[in-house]
Amino acid sequence: MTLDVIPIHVLTQAPGEPGLTGNAPPLLRELAEQVSRLLKTGEPSAIDLSALPLTPADLDWLREKLGSGEISVTLQANGESTLNETACPGIWWVTHRNEQGAIASQFIEVTFVPELVKAHPQDVEIGREQLELMISDL
Amino acid sequence: MTLDVIPIHVLTQAPGEPGLTGNAPPLLRELAEQVSRLLKTGEPSAIDLSALPLTPADLDWLREKLGSGEISVTLQANGESTLNETACPGIWWVTHRNEQGAIASQFIEVTFVPELVKAHPQDVEIGREQLELMISDL
Repeated sequence: MTLDVIPIHVLTQAPGEPGLTGNAPPLLRELAEQVSRLLKTGEPSAIDLSALPLTPADLDWLREKLGSGEISVTLQANGESTLNETACPGIWWVTHRNEQGAIASQFIEVTFVPELVKAHPQDVEIGREQLELMISDL
Repeated sequence: MTLDVIPIHVLTQAPGEPGLTGNAPPLLRELAEQVSRLLKTGEPSAIDLSALPLTPADLDWLREKLGSGEISVTLQANGESTLNETACPGIWWVTHRNEQGAIASQFIEVTFVPELVKAHPQDVEIGREQLELMISDL
């Protein structure tokens, strides 16, 4: 990631747009570069929104600009995570919540498919062994 | 797929188990083989449940045996599709519905991640172009 090249503004309000800091539009440019990189090299990347000086209005603006796609993924593991494809395929809005339902972290991932959605071979192997046990009990 | 080796019974009722035909247990064995193949060769596979002589009771039995996993995926495209990981990682229960909400087809997929969840490079490229247009309009 090359977040150091994003010109992050201090938290001042842009005239006429309540709550917007001007920090969100550069993220769209960064995302366009990340998507280009994904297509050229297959390299996925992510922007940690929690680590950036973004207001709720900035996040709303960003989310509205990126739009909603066809795919939404829910993962239940120590709290709920949602991975929603945006209207830009390959860009996913990822929200992790804790067991109380509060947002623990929020990312924009640029990838063909988020890692979290993939089954890991070692888990598949454990599942296969359990399946064999279940079959032998039938 | 080697469905031809599954001993499919005719639709007779197993004694004492209303609605069960005996056709579901061999599918668990086939799935265990498909999972082994996935782990050995990376080759995904699928069982088209709509094409097999399974009663609703058979499907319920199968679904209960496979259990529920952590991940559920919803895809909205000419009707809703759901891709639910079972408690056996790498085995996904996939239901496609038509625009009226009726089940159009039903599969068990054996794969690390279902193809439908992946963004396709040509769609990512189209999205990238739209993103660039949006940025130039800011």
